[in-house]
Amino acid sequence: MAQYAAKTPQDLPTQAQLLSMSGLDFMRGMLSGALSGPPIAAELGYTLDTVEEGRVVFRGTPEFRFSNPMGSLHGGWYGTLLDSCMACAVMTLVPQGSYYTTLEYKVNITRVIPIGMEILATGVSLHAGRSTGVATGEIRGAEDGKLYATGSTTCMIMAAR
Amino acid sequence: MAQYAAKTPQDLPTQAQLLSMSGLDFMRGMLSGALSGPPIAAELGYTLDTVEEGRVVFRGTPEFRFSNPMGSLHGGWYGTLLDSCMACAVMTLVPQGSYYTTLEYKVNITRVIPIGMEILATGVSLHAGRSTGVATGEIRGAEDGKLYATGSTTCMIMAAR
Amino acid sequence: MAQYAAKTPQDLPTQAQLLSMSGLDFMRGMLSGALSGPPIAAELGYTLDTVEEGRVVFRGTPEFRFSNPMGSLHGGWYGTLLDSCMACAVMTLVPQGSYYTTLEYKVNITRVIPIGMEILATGVSLHAGRSTGVATGEIRGAEDGKLYATGSTTCMIMAAR
Amino acid sequence: MAQYAAKTPQDLPTQAQLLSMSGLDFMRGMLSGALSGPPIAAELGYTLDTVEEGRVVFRGTPEFRFSNPMGSLHGGWYGTLLDSCMACAVMTLVPQGSYYTTLEYKVNITRVIPIGMEILATGVSLHAGRSTGVATGEIRGAEDGKLYATGSTTCMIMAAR
Repeated sequence: MAQYAAKTPQDLPTQAQLLSMSGLDFMRGMLSGALSGPPIAAELGYTLDTVEEGRVVFRGTPEFRFSNPMGSLHGGWYGTLLDSCMACAVMTLVPQGSYYTTLEYKVNITRVIPIGMEILATGVSLHAGRSTGVATGEIRGAEDGKLYATGSTTCMIMAAR
Repeated sequence: MAQYAAKTPQDLPTQAQLLSMSGLDFMRGMLSGALSGPPIAAELGYTLDTVEEGRVVFRGTPEFRFSNPMGSLHGGWYGTLLDSCMACAVMTLVPQGSYYTTLEYKVNITRVIPIGMEILATGVSLHAGRSTGVATGEIRGAEDGKLYATGSTTCMIMAAR
Repeated sequence: MAQYAAKTPQDLPTQAQLLSMSGLDFMRGMLSGALSGPPIAAELGYTLDTVEEGRVVFRGTPEFRFSNPMGSLHGGWYGTLLDSCMACAVMTLVPQGSYYTTLEYKVNITRVIPIGMEILATGVSLHAGRSTGVATGEIRGAEDGKLYATGSTTCMIMAAR
Repeated sequence: MAQYAAKTPQDLPTQAQLLSMSGLDFMRGMLSGALSGPPIAAELGYTLDTVEEGRVVFRGTPEFRFSNPMGSLHGGWYGTLLDSCMACAVMTLVPQGSYYTTLEYKVNITRVIPIGMEILATGVSLHAGRSTGVATGEIRGAEDGKLYATGSTTCMIMAAR
């Protein structure tokens, strides 16, 4: 199966489905194409690349249509990719019956990503407890391996009632 | 004239144009439609609403296609709107002959924005010196006035040589 | 009564005392001197100035002994003052029977505070729900009114069991 | 020679001294005791442990006098240690004739550090260019190796004129 993005709310996994599996299985289902992926990824030109316990990688290439008024890549693209990989890294540590939500994230841009250059956005969750999860992330060039941005996030983990 | 987004690099203001006017005039040109706006705004469903010295407002409505794997609005949309309004607020304070770039931004999500609900993202620059500018931002519902997210940013301001 | 800082754990309010009153009453008790204040405030040269629902001000003056290796005020002093006023602003919204803990905070330094200059650090809580609270903060000169630093924080609010 | 903290501005290296050596040599001078260390470190109970190119470690033990009104370690202590190790990691990459200042830092607290427990705060600079430097940091227990906090920072690097 190939990865695909939900086009309507009906394409999404139901909440019952979501709560019936661990976060790691949910992420693996998305990678295999058994479950639909995030609609925003299709809009912003990135796909899921790797899923491991505590570590998730997305792969993407920015296009001109994501640029700012000066024609260079908008900061929102960096943030979207980092939020995705960091939140999904936390997700891989969320137990069955729980779900999570992003409380905050921060983005540091160290180099401007050229339009058309492929990058890897890697999130690593350093800690996930009963009620919160924390992750860090980085964006590196897929070919040059250089660091383009770093990020950090705090997620809240909640047990369904 | 109406606002519009650049579709190709040729639609963008040239660097010479950019450096020939103050940041405030640049932002006003975008608002009036004399200059093209950020391509990413057209992609992510938001437009420029207000430009004042030190304060910029964008208006937008999230759609389902910007949601995360659980079907709620992706954190990247909050960050994109906040980065836009905060960086543009700094831009209104940048003198002629200088330009700026975002070094970092942070997003705190306080409430989930429902898909389809119109919001206002307001950036206020509290300080812009010779080499750096700082701004804060918030997203409020256009109708309910409630606070959905807050942000902060640091930009670097550079004189062209 | 005058404000004072706990010198030993025995000077602190007990957990039962803490949970028997609202966060606002707890903060007012500290302001009046009925309850001991934070030990770190005495160490780092600041005191509680104002307590309102959702807003707390600390007043302080940095000394040479809080400087960095170059002799200017260390970034940790800005962060300590901002964390204090922002977390206490959240505290004023925490209901009786609950307590809170800081998950993260961020500090933007806009100007260097001169050693010996009195400042006011003001925290405002923009949102406090059942499980999380968010606040922003700023440090301004007590006399010049200029902005020296801004901050933001996320706290977790928990009901005692 | 042993490390020591400046007690008065006269104990500090002069600006001429500071600019005559690379940031790495400056940090090594502090480690060896040839140059005085940050006054705040002596106040808040931590010392320099390791200096490498792009990596600096501080070692410290929180005391009761650094606690918050509830008697647990104040968030400002985490931030001070992280700001120190991250800014110093950037410092090791600053060339002779330049200096730097912290623009912003962020702290995520993942576990509460018990009063009296020794920790290591490690800063790593992932990028330092002509005008800005970025670093990340973490605090781990010296014995248990567990992660207690993470941080990130942006510094501005300036050439002396």
